[in-house]
Amino acid sequence: MASRLTVVYRVRGSAASAAERAEALAVEQSVEMPVSAITDAYVREQIVGRVLGIDQIDDEVHDVRIGLAPETIGDDAGQLFNMLFGNSSLLDDVVLQDVDLPDDLVRAFGGPRHGIDGLRRRGGGRRRALTGSALKPQGLPPDDLARLAARFAEGGIDVVKDDHGLADQACSPFAARITAVAAALRGVADRTGRRTCYVPSVSGDLDRCSRQIDLARREGLDTVMVAPMIAGPANVQALVRRHPDIAFIAHPTLAGAARLAPPVLYGRLFRLIGIDGVVFPNHGGRFGYSADTCRALADAARGPWRDLAPVLPIPAGGMTPERAGEMLDFYGRDVLLLIGGALLRAGDRLIDATAAFVRAVDAHTYGD
Amino acid sequence: MASRLTVVYRVRGSAASAAERAEALAVEQSVEMPVSAITDAYVREQIVGRVLGIDQIDDEVHDVRIGLAPETIGDDAGQLFNMLFGNSSLLDDVVLQDVDLPDDLVRAFGGPRHGIDGLRRRGGGRRRALTGSALKPQGLPPDDLARLAARFAEGGIDVVKDDHGLADQACSPFAARITAVAAALRGVADRTGRRTCYVPSVSGDLDRCSRQIDLARREGLDTVMVAPMIAGPANVQALVRRHPDIAFIAHPTLAGAARLAPPVLYGRLFRLIGIDGVVFPNHGGRFGYSADTCRALADAARGPWRDLAPVLPIPAGGMTPERAGEMLDFYGRDVLLLIGGALLRAGDRLIDATAAFVRAVDAHTYGD
Repeated sequence: MASRLTVVYRVRGSAASAAERAEALAVEQSVEMPVSAITDAYVREQIVGRVLGIDQIDDEVHDVRIGLAPETIGDDAGQLFNMLFGNSSLLDDVVLQDVDLPDDLVRAFGGPRHGIDGLRRRGGGRRRALTGSALKPQGLPPDDLARLAARFAEGGIDVVKDDHGLADQACSPFAARITAVAAALRGVADRTGRRTCYVPSVSGDLDRCSRQIDLARREGLDTVMVAPMIAGPANVQALVRRHPDIAFIAHPTLAGAARLAPPVLYGRLFRLIGIDGVVFPNHGGRFGYSADTCRALADAARGPWRDLAPVLPIPAGGMTPERAGEMLDFYGRDVLLLIGGALLRAGDRLIDATAAFVRAVDAHTYGD
Repeated sequence: MASRLTVVYRVRGSAASAAERAEALAVEQSVEMPVSAITDAYVREQIVGRVLGIDQIDDEVHDVRIGLAPETIGDDAGQLFNMLFGNSSLLDDVVLQDVDLPDDLVRAFGGPRHGIDGLRRRGGGRRRALTGSALKPQGLPPDDLARLAARFAEGGIDVVKDDHGLADQACSPFAARITAVAAALRGVADRTGRRTCYVPSVSGDLDRCSRQIDLARREGLDTVMVAPMIAGPANVQALVRRHPDIAFIAHPTLAGAARLAPPVLYGRLFRLIGIDGVVFPNHGGRFGYSADTCRALADAARGPWRDLAPVLPIPAGGMTPERAGEMLDFYGRDVLLLIGGALLRAGDRLIDATAAFVRAVDAHTYGD
């Protein structure tokens, strides 16, 4: 038998109930039927999930470790999510807390094709942290978004991405938008000699996403944003395989708050399927992730994990230039600071505000 | 301006905080930036979400009603989920409680192509409730699953579906499985004159799902199961459009417990994108949905909603033949009772147990 996936579920309840819950989860996430009714020896021995251990976290919280058979997953990212947390997601007190995957499976998925180094090259190749902002609000026509992108670029920003609300709407069709923005950024680069990396958001079904990536490539772009929990993990996996020259940044929309522990979702599962950079809500912003969660997420995304390239953390969600120093102390140089609304608030002074943000990141002294 | 989407979010907190939360949600789910920094008049007037009202549910729970612009969505189901509950899903105390969609948008998506009538015809055309079971455990080879399907059919069951764990794994490749199961069921039908509807589970990226549906059609099958929250809503929408002859049953895997209120998710959003039948965890089974939730879900799935065909409720998740009468009293005749493990437990007596289950449903007297 190939070595198993180890999955840790965090459950509420007493130690006695945790033992029962563990057995139930092992069945739910594998054969989903009474084990006593299984007559096939192979299925009983190899396919049924196994309880590997139970760790008490506190009186009413336990981590149950389950071994799942890799045979149930094959090579499909959707099926991976299905087997890790499909039906268990319907239980209102279970969190997917950790996963450890066998070498074969990790190798089959392959992880990021570009990772931190690839994104760093795309963002100008500097050793320091990257700076980024977002094109918004949705509702603006392509030319207005292009003018906005040009102003960010004038301010010296490394990366400009689409807001995740920008899709392929009538007011700003994908093709028209990326053509206008790419042209505007080429114009600034010709003048300043400094390239800004534009990251359009691709959306829709797999084929629509894939066509949008083809359009982006034709505009000289090499990085896109995708929402794995809306596009579906198998479709992201397909996009990564079809477009090996493209770097992928994941947006967390629809990813939920906490039932899939953020370090697992962003640092393991998104990394596994080939995401190169992960946008996530930083602590102290508009969302509820704690500093500990953000640190664990960044550690999982960037830390060593088999032979997979590291993923660039992109903390966001209500960040301000004033927090740049603190965020760089927290995350170090392997990070992209994404500041949207707080820069846009500068209005006519946007170029100056952007330049000041970039200078602050330039001037930062890292602890390393 | 086209009429707005009305979205109801349930939030925790005092009345004073609810007003603030409402404004924040209206911005988060539309422009996602400080409104004061928006200079474009069209965006300020048409695109920014609007607070329409706040209803107190109790001291610490409020429903905030937000109007969102349909222009932000276009015709893409993924973007619909993104705008309804994308970033808000990252807030740990917000539930998507209700949605009301403009006529144009509902018409553009189109809803079920077959609905209850279409599934009823596929399940034998009787006026009574439908009976169904599942092929499991995963890990069995195609021939064993085919033999199991044949025994269910011998017992007179209307529908046999793949367990949602069955994908395209080495131990039971999709093509080999459906060929074997379809042949076995044709064999029984030739003998008994009674057709059993086989519903294979399609999985993987959009193109893989679509190829699997083509294979199913070649085997004479006309109904498939799909997991919208794993496949991604836009991809399900694409499958429905590409395969108008096929009826689609949705499995709830990865759909989460309660943050997207089940009546909205199953009865509105899945219905909108063209799902004909929805599997969901019935109350009193292995999962946590209450009887009230199940009733509201069934009402939303089957009740009148513009011109959309009604969706067949398929309560499941640890049901037993002993509960058939109670479930039929609860749901009436427009339901498919899905009983898996409890029938499989009968072992050598599976055909008899299935026949007894079907007889109980045959004999039931409905209140109508």
